[in-house]
Amino acid sequence: MTGRLTVVGTGPGNPDQTTPEALAAIAAARQFFGYGPYLDRLDLRSDQQRIASDNREELSRAKAALKAAAAGNNVCVVSGGDPGVFAMAAAICEAIEEGPPAWRNLDLDIVPGVTAMLAVAAKAGAPLGHDFCAISLSDNLKPWTVIEQRLRAVAGAGLVIALYNPISKARPWQLGTAFAILREVLPWTTPVIFGRAAGRSDEIITVASLAEAKAEQADMATCVIIGSPETRVIERPGRAPIVYSPRSTGGPQ
Amino acid sequence: MTGRLTVVGTGPGNPDQTTPEALAAIAAARQFFGYGPYLDRLDLRSDQQRIASDNREELSRAKAALKAAAAGNNVCVVSGGDPGVFAMAAAICEAIEEGPPAWRNLDLDIVPGVTAMLAVAAKAGAPLGHDFCAISLSDNLKPWTVIEQRLRAVAGAGLVIALYNPISKARPWQLGTAFAILREVLPWTTPVIFGRAAGRSDEIITVASLAEAKAEQADMATCVIIGSPETRVIERPGRAPIVYSPRSTGGPQ
Repeated sequence: MTGRLTVVGTGPGNPDQTTPEALAAIAAARQFFGYGPYLDRLDLRSDQQRIASDNREELSRAKAALKAAAAGNNVCVVSGGDPGVFAMAAAICEAIEEGPPAWRNLDLDIVPGVTAMLAVAAKAGAPLGHDFCAISLSDNLKPWTVIEQRLRAVAGAGLVIALYNPISKARPWQLGTAFAILREVLPWTTPVIFGRAAGRSDEIITVASLAEAKAEQADMATCVIIGSPETRVIERPGRAPIVYSPRSTGGPQ
Repeated sequence: MTGRLTVVGTGPGNPDQTTPEALAAIAAARQFFGYGPYLDRLDLRSDQQRIASDNREELSRAKAALKAAAAGNNVCVVSGGDPGVFAMAAAICEAIEEGPPAWRNLDLDIVPGVTAMLAVAAKAGAPLGHDFCAISLSDNLKPWTVIEQRLRAVAGAGLVIALYNPISKARPWQLGTAFAILREVLPWTTPVIFGRAAGRSDEIITVASLAEAKAEQADMATCVIIGSPETRVIERPGRAPIVYSPRSTGGPQ
């Protein structure tokens, strides 16, 4: 019997932003592997089994899920947001490459979702309106020197930057250092968006200039979007400002 | 009476990838502005009005939609994918900034969606598994020199690259030139994914090396993902290969 493994993205946390495809995949599976808080969002039946693990155990979780699928189970690995953006899909692929040949023969499906930067951008206006990038600020899996070099390269090239994993208890200084690096490259007036829990009841979206932006404005659940030199702020009387990056970029047309 | 304007992303084209939030926004609106093929996907009621326009008329469409909303209508502007990624949200913001003060006072909501690169990546494996960027290859709204400089910067910095708007009848040479530029910076073995209509019945996902990749493999509906030097291909007997970018990046940990 060949098992099945589906890697599902449930979106940024608002149930209305979970796709029907993701819900159908969840309904069909029997065993659920994931970070506890993501599994908590699911409304599982009594015939569905929940196997939670810590946030930092992605590769061992991936291997456990593949092993269960190879044993013939219908397994679902759950990510918040999109599973392909700094989430479980890459860990599953790494485990397949390293693992026994049988794992290559599993039915593997990956179900995309709305990733955090899209939900935050939608609440702020259109900050990702021209070329942009997504960079994880975690130096658990790459050297800080690589992150610093990437920040300089993309800011210098005029891309908007979405920062994932901006800060945690174990990584307290990286976001402040990233702002300091970006102040060397970008105008200090560049808008910075801190988007926490976008679309959920506890949503907080704040906008600051790069000069004012402070690492303490972010936590683990925040996606930080830093504009390009062309990103603009539209003030609105009695309403939150709109932040957007114009479609036209980089000089005369 | 204050009108309402909602900019909705319907996802990559598979109805199961449209969020409940997007469907609710569509059900609530009365006037629909958008590119004809995107409006064709909607199942509108007889009390809902369809106002289609050409793909290249984004700013005039935005102004017409804002004018209708300012007149008190409940207006929906429809994008495929996510409205904030090379789509209508930025055009709406540009029009608001340039337009009459009343447009700043409208109820404006932007509803995110699954953007093309996420749907293509999910079908291929996890090619966006580490730092990545999204670049529009259209030089209608920015000079080609800027695009070339950005491609060199992001490829040199080790980011995976998702190319939107890779080719059209009016822009036939840009994708081939982009491949030639990237061959100067990246290993020729770097995987390139051509993802057309991901998740739809006419889906075509093909993988080539950067050495083999040809512009003719793409059309207007294709999202092209070019790996980083660390992107890997897992061959599977009797199945499509898996393409992924490992979470660990850029040297010893």
